[in-house]
This record gives sequence, C-alpha cells and structure tokens, in this order.
Amino acid sequence: VAALPPLPEPTPGIDTAISPAFQPHLPAVDAFPTQLWGRLWGRRWRTSAGPLLAPSAQAASAPLRTALADQLNAGRGLRCTAEQIIIVTGGQQALELVAHVLLDPGDKAWVEDPGSSGLRAVLISAGVHLCPVPVDGDGLAVAAGIARHGDARLAVVRPAHQWPTGVTMTLPRRLALLEWAYQAGAWVVEDDSGGAFAYTTHATTPLQALDQGARVLQIGSLSQLLFPALRLGYLIAPPDLVEPLLWVQHLTSRPPPAVDQAVLADFITGGHFAQHLRRLTDLYQERQSTLLAACQRELGEWLNVQPATAGFHLTGWLAPGLDDRAVAAQAAALGITVTPISPQRLIPGGPQGLALGYGGVRPELIGPAVQRLATVLEERR
Amino acid sequence: VAALPPLPEPTPGIDTAISPAFQPHLPAVDAFPTQLWGRLWGRRWRTSAGPLLAPSAQAASAPLRTALADQLNAGRGLRCTAEQIIIVTGGQQALELVAHVLLDPGDKAWVEDPGSSGLRAVLISAGVHLCPVPVDGDGLAVAAGIARHGDARLAVVRPAHQWPTGVTMTLPRRLALLEWAYQAGAWVVEDDSGGAFAYTTHATTPLQALDQGARVLQIGSLSQLLFPALRLGYLIAPPDLVEPLLWVQHLTSRPPPAVDQAVLADFITGGHFAQHLRRLTDLYQERQSTLLAACQRELGEWLNVQPATAGFHLTGWLAPGLDDRAVAAQAAALGITVTPISPQRLIPGGPQGLALGYGGVRPELIGPAVQRLATVLEERR
Repeated sequence: VAALPPLPEPTPGIDTAISPAFQPHLPAVDAFPTQLWGRLWGRRWRTSAGPLLAPSAQAASAPLRTALADQLNAGRGLRCTAEQIIIVTGGQQALELVAHVLLDPGDKAWVEDPGSSGLRAVLISAGVHLCPVPVDGDGLAVAAGIARHGDARLAVVRPAHQWPTGVTMTLPRRLALLEWAYQAGAWVVEDDSGGAFAYTTHATTPLQALDQGARVLQIGSLSQLLFPALRLGYLIAPPDLVEPLLWVQHLTSRPPPAVDQAVLADFITGGHFAQHLRRLTDLYQERQSTLLAACQRELGEWLNVQPATAGFHLTGWLAPGLDDRAVAAQAAALGITVTPISPQRLIPGGPQGLALGYGGVRPELIGPAVQRLATVLEERR
Repeated sequence: VAALPPLPEPTPGIDTAISPAFQPHLPAVDAFPTQLWGRLWGRRWRTSAGPLLAPSAQAASAPLRTALADQLNAGRGLRCTAEQIIIVTGGQQALELVAHVLLDPGDKAWVEDPGSSGLRAVLISAGVHLCPVPVDGDGLAVAAGIARHGDARLAVVRPAHQWPTGVTMTLPRRLALLEWAYQAGAWVVEDDSGGAFAYTTHATTPLQALDQGARVLQIGSLSQLLFPALRLGYLIAPPDLVEPLLWVQHLTSRPPPAVDQAVLADFITGGHFAQHLRRLTDLYQERQSTLLAACQRELGEWLNVQPATAGFHLTGWLAPGLDDRAVAAQAAALGITVTPISPQRLIPGGPQGLALGYGGVRPELIGPAVQRLATVLEERR
C-alpha cells in the first residue's frame, strides 16, 4: 500500500471559539435555523416514523424531488421535472454515477485547470483519462479544449463561480461549450455550486437551462447550501438517463436516508429554504465586503483580490516571488486555512494564488484572520 | 443505453395494513423503539447541533466507532479496535471501498454461488472478474474454489447465515478458507449479516475473530439490524488498510451524516442496542417457528423448508418440476414476495428453491401469507 498524505482534519464545529478561516466550501452554519430544523425533524419522526424506517427508493423521495424542482426552476431558471432529479449524497456521488453510466475506462473527460481535485478524483477512480482545459477570465477556454481534446466524451465545469479561480463563465463560452457537446456527441456535467448566491442584478443562466440537446447533467450539493453534515445533493439528468443512473445508485450505494429527505422537503415547501438562501445572500455579500476591504487594507501589495459576483469564496493572486503552497502551509500553522491554487493545476505554471472561503466565517473574525495572514506574507516576501 | 429491468418497488412502510411478506433482509421495523430514537435524536440536536452541522470525518465518528467496537467484541467475539472501524452507508459501499483499494480491474474474486447479487454488482462495477464457488451444506466449497480459481485475490463470503441458502459455514471450512488466503496472499471479505441472531447455544466464530494473518475485512449493515432507512454500516479492516480505505471514502462518497452516527452511538452506549438485539432474537425465533410450522403444514409436499440457526430468512427447496422464478412471479401477483434461488446462481442448474425473509413480517400475517403461497404451488405443480 503506497504512502498517502494525511487525511484532512475535521472542521471544528461552529460553537468553537474561532470559526475556521478561510475553510473552502463551508456555508454559514452559524446562521442555520437549527431549532426550526429540529422541530421539522421531530414532527416528521412522530407522524411518519413508520414509512421513514423502510428502505428509501426513488418513489419515496418524490416529495423532495418535487419541492426541489419547483425551487430550482424558480430560483435558478432551470427547466426540469421532479422525474429528472436523483437525490444523492453529494456532488461527488453524482459524478460517480454519471461516470459509471456514460463513460468507459480510458474515455477522455475535460476538467477545468485549475479545478476541483475532489471531482477529478472521482473521474480518476472511474478510470477516466483527464484532459486539462485552461480557465481564463471568461471561464473555460472552450476553443483550446476543442483544439487539444476535441474527442472527449464529457466536460465537467463549474460555470457560475469557478473553483478555485472565482471566474464566472461568459454566455458566449457557455454556448460554445454546448455547441461542442452537440457536435461531438459529448456530455456536459455542470456543477452549479455557488450559483445560488448571485450579487449582481444579471445572474448568469445555467447550462441546464440553455441546453437544447439533452446533453447537460447538473450536479448540486445541498450540504454546501445548508450544512455539511446533511450529506444530500442532487443530480438532474436528461429523461433517458434517469433509469440507468438510478440502477447504478441502487446497485452501489442506495439513496440517502429517507428521514433527512422528508425533513428537507418540508423545509423547502414551508418556504424556509428560499428564505434562508435570501438571508445567506445578504450575509455572504456582507462577509465578502468585509473580507475584500480587509485584504485591500492589510495585504494590498502582496495579494490582489478581486470581488466575486457569486459563490462564497474570493480568489487572490500573489505578487511575484511568493509561493502559494509555502504561504498556505505557514498560515495553517497559525490556524488560518487558505487554499493554494497551484495544487489545483494539472499543468504546472501560471500565476500563484490563494482561495479564501468566507461563507462560514463570522464577520468579526475576518479582520483578525487577515491580519494574521499579513504577518505570513510580510515574512515570506 | 441498454434496456434495463424495472427498478424494485419501494418497500411499503410498516404502518400499512399488511407487512410485506416475505421481503428479504427487512428487519422487524415494527419492533423498533421509534419514540426512544426520536428522544435521543432531539437531545443530540439540542445539545450538539453546532458540531453536528460540520462535515463528518473519521475523527467525528470516534464515539460511534468506540461504542461499536465494544458491542461487536462483546456480542460477536470480534477482536477489533475503534481505529479499525470505518463507518459506511452499508455493506455495498464497504465492498466498493475494499475493491477500490485492494483490487485492480481484471483481478479475480471468489463469490458464493448462489450468492448475493447486490455484492456481485459492486464487484462487476469495479471491473473485477467473478469466480463462482459453489455452496454446499457445509458452506463455501473451499477446495473447489482452490482447484478452479486458486489465483484469486479476494473471497467474499457470508459464513454466519449464507444468502440465499441459509447454510452456516462449518469451522473446518472457515479455517480452510483462511489457510488459502494466507497461502495465496488473498483477502477475505466477511459479510456478517445474520450473525447477530444465533438460535443455538454454540454460536459460530466469525472469520474476523479467527484470523491470525490480518487478511480478513468484515462488513456489516446496521440498517439491516435496526431499520433500513438508517443507511449506516461498518467496515472492519486490518490496521494497515484503514488509511487508504478512508482516503477512497473521502475522495468518492464521504462519511455518512454525523447526526445519525451520534444518535446511534448514544443508542449503543445507553444499552438500547444490545437490548434491542436480544428482543429481536426472541422475536425472530418466534417468527421462524411460526413460518416453519406454517410451511410444513401448508406446503409440505412442494417446499422442503429446514430450520435456520441464525439470521432472519428461511430457505425452502422446491419439489422437482416446480420452477422457482415462475412461482415467485405468480406469488408477487398475489402480493407475496419470495426470492427465487435460480437468479442468484452464476452457474445455472442445481436445485430450485425460495428464500423467505421473515424479519419484518408480523406473526399473525405469516399463516395467511403461506396459505396464499400454497395456492400458487398447488396451481403450478
């Protein structure tokens, strides 16, 4: 058995004295209405413990799928039915199902470079050949992808708010990506993470809503919207693919627990989900402003941070000479989590930078954390 | 996309008028202490919602792993530490992790024939080459396995109460299997399903407890002990394998929800788990007696049912001329679920039979269900 890097440490709970700054992908768990959720859970358990004890199945998740379809169609402009939705434990399980059904080992798939190492790991473990496609200021460089790997079978993209660069993919690029998929008979997996939080008046249209050829599958994490331990997500597939995807889920991992699904359905249909997203949008906008101001004040010369139009992380580019891995390692020793960009690249080189998740950081802790980061940068420059 | 058989229907809840007879692997959900579980859940949520909202990780599952190690060491005679346990969503996810870490595509694995189609599907999806090894009255025919597929890398067995034959593997066979694993450098995955319910004074010793060479991994479903929607299970691995198995889980599916793990830990440490297992053992013994008597009374000439020393299903062998698939299909039309043996065989032939799960069937419904099954057999003979 080969030597492995240490497993990531567990995230401290929100009731610890200091929230983890700047943990990526962590939502504002401090703002989650835990009392309300507890009441909804108790009501479900008292009234329907019987059916909820039974094995969960696609039919049992119908209330959640219906609620989610309404929510996503209204909130994200999607065009999907409840029948097209499969409830999964998260984005990674969703991609695992997709890879099982649509790809054979050795098939090529575009991945964003830099991009999500978690999603790449799923493809690697399915025996898929990764084709890195660069991300520039307009998002995925579709033309470069076509020139280098036009024969790929799948593209995995995060257009709303790319990880880790924070770029939003432009509409022309989105359309070019779909056009390639239609021409090549390829599939597009859209990770809509960050898309629920848009801070501009003109929100971008998801690929799922633009798709005219039933080539787009959208994956989304509900744990990343509400709280990580929820372990629920969704996969929206073209109608023809739903049955085989459900079969693979049935044969490998089975659907997530029925109780959590029922409670989440109540949370959505009661209007609490939409309300919580609105509250989070305000909160994230405030946290982003606070973080941006602190970075410009404290780190101005060393880290060039730009505002983001969606999501809940900011990306900063380091001044020449600063090494992002070294900065991140030294910051970690001071209790500050920042994500270096370089390890997210498949093709080495390109600017060095840091991604700072601010979703789960209480605003009063942002300033002190940035000051601590400043001491690291000052020392290393 | 190839045509697929229809997905299994969801199991009706326990509060429907008629429990599903004779649904395999369904525990006595009617006897589960739902009120107690609801109280434990509420207490956990009120006191520790903060930490429980955070992403779950191996460290966060320490209380459950400690409780489970104590429970399994005392109750099943295992010799494992909390560090050797990985919490998973069920036996299938456990085997998926094992296949990822220990096998390469094309590697050979012994599977019991007849045996579990669910576990086979996991191996197939990992690209593993299945080697059917026959099961006789003493369990897996180890000598036949060595003669035909001595170079396999893995054996997947269910020694306590084989599915679907109901056979318990004898001690000499268990020792022979371990000896082969040591000689061949192969791994043994022990599915301990059914082992928690032993109706004889001399319970058999699990392979995990017999293993002197760190070649056995045990998988177990907690959902099959308590209630299916729990979606929790465990994998016990030799110490060296824990870290790579956790990595694969981290990269693909992540650990199950933290809240359920915390509540289950409370359920075990409060003594409720051991108490519930004792209650289930009595209940299953009663249900087995009722089913056995009904079968002998109503089906005597057509179905030869033998008592089982463990688990919660009975296996009956059909009189010559009766086709198990046809019987099962006709019974299903009358609302009776019986599992035909033939489809669980990789090598066709051998006696035809039916597996009858009795765990989730209330005793007063057993007689009427068997009478309905008698009408099917009478018509088809």
